[in-house]
Amino acid sequence: MSDHHPHSEDHFEASELVRDVVIGMADGLTVPFALAAGISGAAVAVSTVVTAGVAEIAAGAIAMGLGGYLAARSSADHYGAELAREEFEILEKPEAEAAEVAEIFEHYGLKPEHYAGVIAGLRERPIAWRDFMMRFELGLERPNPTQAQRSAITIGASYVVGGSIPLAPYVVLHSVNQALPWSAAVTLLALGLFGYGKARFSGAPPLRSALQTMAIGGMAASVAFLLARAIS
Amino acid sequence: MSDHHPHSEDHFEASELVRDVVIGMADGLTVPFALAAGISGAAVAVSTVVTAGVAEIAAGAIAMGLGGYLAARSSADHYGAELAREEFEILEKPEAEAAEVAEIFEHYGLKPEHYAGVIAGLRERPIAWRDFMMRFELGLERPNPTQAQRSAITIGASYVVGGSIPLAPYVVLHSVNQALPWSAAVTLLALGLFGYGKARFSGAPPLRSALQTMAIGGMAASVAFLLARAIS
Repeated sequence: MSDHHPHSEDHFEASELVRDVVIGMADGLTVPFALAAGISGAAVAVSTVVTAGVAEIAAGAIAMGLGGYLAARSSADHYGAELAREEFEILEKPEAEAAEVAEIFEHYGLKPEHYAGVIAGLRERPIAWRDFMMRFELGLERPNPTQAQRSAITIGASYVVGGSIPLAPYVVLHSVNQALPWSAAVTLLALGLFGYGKARFSGAPPLRSALQTMAIGGMAASVAFLLARAIS
Repeated sequence: MSDHHPHSEDHFEASELVRDVVIGMADGLTVPFALAAGISGAAVAVSTVVTAGVAEIAAGAIAMGLGGYLAARSSADHYGAELAREEFEILEKPEAEAAEVAEIFEHYGLKPEHYAGVIAGLRERPIAWRDFMMRFELGLERPNPTQAQRSAITIGASYVVGGSIPLAPYVVLHSVNQALPWSAAVTLLALGLFGYGKARFSGAPPLRSALQTMAIGGMAASVAFLLARAIS
């Protein structure tokens, strides 16, 4: 264990990228796999499975990618609105704002004798005061302006990559009965590797992560298969 | 504008619930709609659309619900691991930890004369010091222990509710050509209402939010439709 924590900002961009790949690929592996397995249970032609799979991958990639874009944009908007409000309050109502700083420290059992210096220092530094309130009162991090576009592309592309794995056997093989076990095998393998690799970033136990990821995919596919067979 | 910010903790549970409904319903409305439209473009029987739609809704609800559950659980694990590390460092390396507190305040241009009192106060309160570091060094909120299960159920159920809207016309009507325009109409209406309502919580302009949500769904469905028609 080092004496020093890794600073969150250093790893900010890498962890955002990993998070987006995880978001896109987890769903991309699971849902198209389960959909293909599900309609395989309804005894349709292999071409129908491929068509439905491609439609699902396109729809899912766009919905998740644009969803990620809008989520990132809306948190940037939210940050901007709160920043303006903090600026207004520091300029127009400094006493109320100083009381809010006091409240933050009182929460940790500190007394005016401990935190009076911080309030005095912030009063002389309005910009730093605003940034201090954003972080310590509201818990908001300054968003990265290009993050929204990058998020959209990463999530969408990861969904397409993930989704093409379960669909590949239906493209290559000529019957649903042949393709389904291959699709299950390659997808469960990919889910296991993905869960294992993901654990390296999250710090979770790798084997547990691999088994969990495989269990989600397997359960989603089994339920979809049984439901589709029941209603068809 | 009130003198006082709403405290994030007060609205914590409500905002988690809204966030989970938004996550589940946004995808639930969009992806099954686009999938149904997509395979409608491949001239299949209406029963195939229903089967594929039900399979997709089941798969998506399970994948997203369990995904939400595991994400919440893994952030609770992460919090626990960091908490243990902070406790260790405060007990074993208080000087290094005090330097980290100083670093936090130096970041806002404050000097030892301003923050020395805070460090002195925290040294006398090791538990408060630990919690202070969790929040102000690492930016981590204490996770709610029942949040993970609630998240899973809310996201999954919202996905099913959202997904049943575009699928309903295919269940009621007897041809794909009749059902597709009705599915598009009710889904775009639902997406618009959903985007409008969502904006009340996020603070975004409601009309823009409604149009954005409709545009994502429409775009995902159009691309899925054209791709499915092209390959079938």
